[in-house]
Amino acid sequence: MGLELYLDLLSQPCRAIYIFAKKNGIPFQLRTVDLLKGQHLSDAFVQVNPLKKVPALKDGDFTLTESVAILLYLTRKYKVPDYWYPQDLQARARVDEYLAWQHTALRRNCLRALWHKVMFPVFLGEQVSSELLAATLAELDDTLQVFEDKFLQNKAFLIGSQISLADLVAITELMHVSVSPLVLAAKSLKADPSWLPGTGKWRLQ
Amino acid sequence: MGLELYLDLLSQPCRAIYIFAKKNGIPFQLRTVDLLKGQHLSDAFVQVNPLKKVPALKDGDFTLTESVAILLYLTRKYKVPDYWYPQDLQARARVDEYLAWQHTALRRNCLRALWHKVMFPVFLGEQVSSELLAATLAELDDTLQVFEDKFLQNKAFLIGSQISLADLVAITELMHVSVSPLVLAAKSLKADPSWLPGTGKWRLQ
Repeated sequence: MGLELYLDLLSQPCRAIYIFAKKNGIPFQLRTVDLLKGQHLSDAFVQVNPLKKVPALKDGDFTLTESVAILLYLTRKYKVPDYWYPQDLQARARVDEYLAWQHTALRRNCLRALWHKVMFPVFLGEQVSSELLAATLAELDDTLQVFEDKFLQNKAFLIGSQISLADLVAITELMHVSVSPLVLAAKSLKADPSWLPGTGKWRLQ
Repeated sequence: MGLELYLDLLSQPCRAIYIFAKKNGIPFQLRTVDLLKGQHLSDAFVQVNPLKKVPALKDGDFTLTESVAILLYLTRKYKVPDYWYPQDLQARARVDEYLAWQHTALRRNCLRALWHKVMFPVFLGEQVSSELLAATLAELDDTLQVFEDKFLQNKAFLIGSQISLADLVAITELMHVSVSPLVLAAKSLKADPSWLPGTGKWRLQ
């Protein structure tokens, strides 16, 4: 069995991996894990990733989770063009810096905004207080300002003059905020949201 | 000017970098940034890191933030022993996986527990509700269980048979939970906590 990627393209990190693999001509079997149907909680998927999260990679009997680790694994195994993760010491450090920063900044705050603005009210029928929503959106604004001031500045790409893993991770996150409410609203009609209360990190507090 | 590391050893990621540099005989100038005195907000430090966070690295005119990026930079520049960040494709992917996971799991939940159990009540005199504290500690328990079940299992090290960057990042985080309340209580007498309310991420909510 060759490379298998367990993805739901509704998920930002999954999209980054899908685009990266397609763009670089990496052959893989797409194993769709429908989050809105709770397929990430199925016995079959828990065998692949006990953390019950997408994305996940299987390469023979080697299984890997965490989107950043998966992107780096594909970068190394498939000898993709240098610009994705430059050999240059300082340029590579800049990519690493962005990939580390985004975990607790842009990704966290985009996800939190999505939950507080869409997931809780649309899927669970729970209203988020206006104070909490305002605080969530203010944090997202602050993070976007840091993204512009420190990372993107007035350049075309985050690092150097070509696209890198940092851009890919950033753009899939940023497009999510504008696109996902429509997609989610359309999908909500056929979704099974019964697993949603388990996502304690984004609980209403 | 050679390598400069801007650290406060009260901070977990700073300790990981300090231990790594010392253990590998990397020459550097320690630039202490006293968090409890708010020195990370000083004009001088903002010139180094506009994000106002430690750790930060200066190597000539190259400045780098984010502890994981700094550890990887030092690993590459100083040709440290392979076990820290193994060349082997799968072993390296395992280190990357842990370093990505910990941002939003162990680090997040240890830090959150520290703020809710120590920083708010000791430094700001704000009581944390018993419900919020219980939820915070329950999340930390869940994360520690994942740490044991998925990552450490019954091995001596997280990846392979020797120490790696993953172990270093993990141990500096884990020791923090047990040691920091005492250190913080001792330091609180001479600290200037006036900057603390700015840490919105851990606000009482």
